[in-house]
Amino acid sequence: MPVVIVEMWEGRTPEQKEALIKGITRAFEEIGVKPEWLNIIIHDVPKSNWGMRGEQASRLAP
Amino acid sequence: MPVVIVEMWEGRTPEQKEALIKGITRAFEEIGVKPEWLNIIIHDVPKSNWGMRGEQASRLAP
Amino acid sequence: MPVVIVEMWEGRTPEQKEALIKGITRAFEEIGVKPEWLNIIIHDVPKSNWGMRGEQASRLAP
Amino acid sequence: MPVVIVEMWEGRTPEQKEALIKGITRAFEEIGVKPEWLNIIIHDVPKSNWGMRGEQASRLAP
Amino acid sequence: MPVVIVEMWEGRTPEQKEALIKGITRAFEEIGVKPEWLNIIIHDVPKSNWGMRGEQASRLAP
Amino acid sequence: MPVVIVEMWEGRTPEQKEALIKGITRAFEEIGVKPEWLNIIIHDVPKSNWGMRGEQASRLAP
Repeated sequence: MPVVIVEMWEGRTPEQKEALIKGITRAFEEIGVKPEWLNIIIHDVPKSNWGMRGEQASRLAP
Repeated sequence: MPVVIVEMWEGRTPEQKEALIKGITRAFEEIGVKPEWLNIIIHDVPKSNWGMRGEQASRLAP
Repeated sequence: MPVVIVEMWEGRTPEQKEALIKGITRAFEEIGVKPEWLNIIIHDVPKSNWGMRGEQASRLAP
Repeated sequence: MPVVIVEMWEGRTPEQKEALIKGITRAFEEIGVKPEWLNIIIHDVPKSNWGMRGEQASRLAP
Repeated sequence: MPVVIVEMWEGRTPEQKEALIKGITRAFEEIGVKPEWLNIIIHDVPKSNWGMRGEQASRLAP
Repeated sequence: MPVVIVEMWEGRTPEQKEALIKGITRAFEEIGVKPEWLNIIIHDVPKSNWGMRGEQASRLAP
């Protein structure tokens, strides 16, 4: 029944999200967790809402 | 002072959100937590950002 | 498929946790979410790890 | 490598978010955490998705 | 700079956690995220703190 | 009513946690949030539960 929450910058394509979901699901299968037990939730975060090195990421990686 | 974070598919009506907030508040009152101590936060998650059974939920429940 | 994460002070009894799980489940049922779709996760947080009014809760409510 | 997740009402200005990121970074520096080790993530939450005192915050503080 | 938070039942071995970290890292690499940009955080949750089907998981899967 | 969740390695002293709570509270005060509106929650994460650079942090920084 694991739950995975992913925080990442917005802007990923639907294909990248699908690949990520499949890849994370595979990672859990390798330790015995069935795909139907898993929920994966992706939060798209605007770069202006992400702080790193004391700055908004929107300034560091516009 | 409990904090409740709800992750669910976007698309709920304001009435459903209000009912949910009232219901969760009641659940805490039953164990002695006053409504003014409680914060409930709802994250609306697009189905394309939700993975289940190794797929995007947008494909399974369009 | 909603996921609920509860952050609260450690020290609740098993009976209180059970009551809380049942109450939250009921709150979701009222808006059409079946119990088998729901995951509820409780994080027990020591009061020394909880800040409120600029202090550790362990000082305010020892 | 700490990660900080902030849940707050939407509506803050970019200047407030920048000030908040700088202030939180400073708080970690004071306990020996370098800015480049820190990720800060801000979730803007609509008031209608925030429950307090058993109500949607959008009703209490429109 | 994605952050991944995993909520799962306590009881996994160190080897399973290591395999999971490697597998999730690989899933991100496949979409262009370098391992050094990624933080993965695992929360071990006691079954008595996990609600599913309206019950504590400790009752359903003791 | 912001909520702040901090994920960091376990091992911080009570003094460091107190300093962190005070510093984060100050950061919010600077943008107009009163200390009594703020909840700060610290999750102590064992290094063996933290993945970075594709490894458990317990191996990289024992």
